[in-house]
Amino acid sequence: MRRIAIKIEYDGTEFCGWQLQAEGRSAQGAIEAAAAKATGVEERVPVQGASRTDVGVHALGQVAHFDTESALACGVLVRAMNHWLPEDVAVLAASEVAPEFNARFSPRSKLYRYRVLPSRIRRPLVQRYSTRVFGPLDRAAMHRGAGAAVGTHDFASFATEVQEGQNTVRTVTRSEWLPAGDELHYEIEGDAFLYNMVRALVGTMLEVGRGKLTPAGFAGVLAQHDRRAAGPTAPARGLTLVEVRYGDEWGVFRPDEPE
Amino acid sequence: MRRIAIKIEYDGTEFCGWQLQAEGRSAQGAIEAAAAKATGVEERVPVQGASRTDVGVHALGQVAHFDTESALACGVLVRAMNHWLPEDVAVLAASEVAPEFNARFSPRSKLYRYRVLPSRIRRPLVQRYSTRVFGPLDRAAMHRGAGAAVGTHDFASFATEVQEGQNTVRTVTRSEWLPAGDELHYEIEGDAFLYNMVRALVGTMLEVGRGKLTPAGFAGVLAQHDRRAAGPTAPARGLTLVEVRYGDEWGVFRPDEPE
Repeated sequence: MRRIAIKIEYDGTEFCGWQLQAEGRSAQGAIEAAAAKATGVEERVPVQGASRTDVGVHALGQVAHFDTESALACGVLVRAMNHWLPEDVAVLAASEVAPEFNARFSPRSKLYRYRVLPSRIRRPLVQRYSTRVFGPLDRAAMHRGAGAAVGTHDFASFATEVQEGQNTVRTVTRSEWLPAGDELHYEIEGDAFLYNMVRALVGTMLEVGRGKLTPAGFAGVLAQHDRRAAGPTAPARGLTLVEVRYGDEWGVFRPDEPE
Repeated sequence: MRRIAIKIEYDGTEFCGWQLQAEGRSAQGAIEAAAAKATGVEERVPVQGASRTDVGVHALGQVAHFDTESALACGVLVRAMNHWLPEDVAVLAASEVAPEFNARFSPRSKLYRYRVLPSRIRRPLVQRYSTRVFGPLDRAAMHRGAGAAVGTHDFASFATEVQEGQNTVRTVTRSEWLPAGDELHYEIEGDAFLYNMVRALVGTMLEVGRGKLTPAGFAGVLAQHDRRAAGPTAPARGLTLVEVRYGDEWGVFRPDEPE
């Protein structure tokens, strides 16, 4: 039995999210079906993803793993899976990994990007991947607010569907707003994220951008550990899972690896 | 009667092109319907576009004009039309223009961009707007070839559906391949373009990029004035009409104009 890690890109627009659902078209379901076809098995091939991205959220670098008896080389597996996958999802790379590797539990960090387009007018060529706000936004204030998220904090103010007794402490190593053409991009990297955490952070920082909340006020919301203190959850379409990072000891997706 | 010029953005993926068709969903048809709704008339409002973009071609800056008895301010017209337009097309700006202005016949130049992604693997997040080629491509060679298109030439080698006696001489003022992240972008500006000309130029320059044709060979294809000498027509999805430029005397879409 070999354990294979794969890197996956998808356009989340027409998926009900990463996770397999009883009804609806999930990225995980598409990957599981393609893994079965590619490795020539009849049964479902269970695939474990790093991040359970929500409906409408995109991925440039989702990671997942599965086990197979197949002896196919990783490059062949990539091509075979892409042959069976629908147009809006693709396997970018595959690596054979140690049996202890787990896409969900082994990551050192994850990087998300949230794209905001300040525009009074709808923009058909970017709206699939970017959330439009009426603007203008005070990027400097948003950026100052964003800095307050760096460090180890209880992010309960930015979590929805928290389970009884769930630990809501997370460590964020990077949190910044960058100019990107007509858009503003929020990039956040951390060890793990609570459900809807990035979108709740963005929704609250947009209130800072509109002058409804000060950067210090944003830090205050974080300190309250109460979801009711924060702003609304920003729409899914602006969010992309950019990368899942694993320690070098796992040796996954080395850029010099031939496909 | 007032003549109104409008600037339009659309995602061409689900349109049968700009031009109104007996069947199928056209960008022109959507704009004509929205113009009628916005100005409160029952009949069709004929709208003349600058460029008859083909099925699947996108626009960041298509321009069109129409005549109306409506006294609505341009900014109100923009908002009203966008209210009635579907998600994949939007009016970005409107200007009242002289009755002699004609979106199709008054342009000084048009700028198109063609996006190419050299990648062996499908890329779901860019494939809507970019044509993937197996790569790698020799950008320097393509760029040298592209330079041969600058100037006034008979572009018959790059025209399809040429009419009997049609003048196939056009003037190109800019023709270059630019690096853009993982992609290569071809930008071409000229006074006017023949049917499928940009896509035939790109299809032929891709043969230069793959080493099947030299840059001098590309110049030779241009000199033959024969469509059979050129390469294939590149796919529509990579092409975007970026801007239609009019002389300052028309005073359209001044950036300092409040919407």
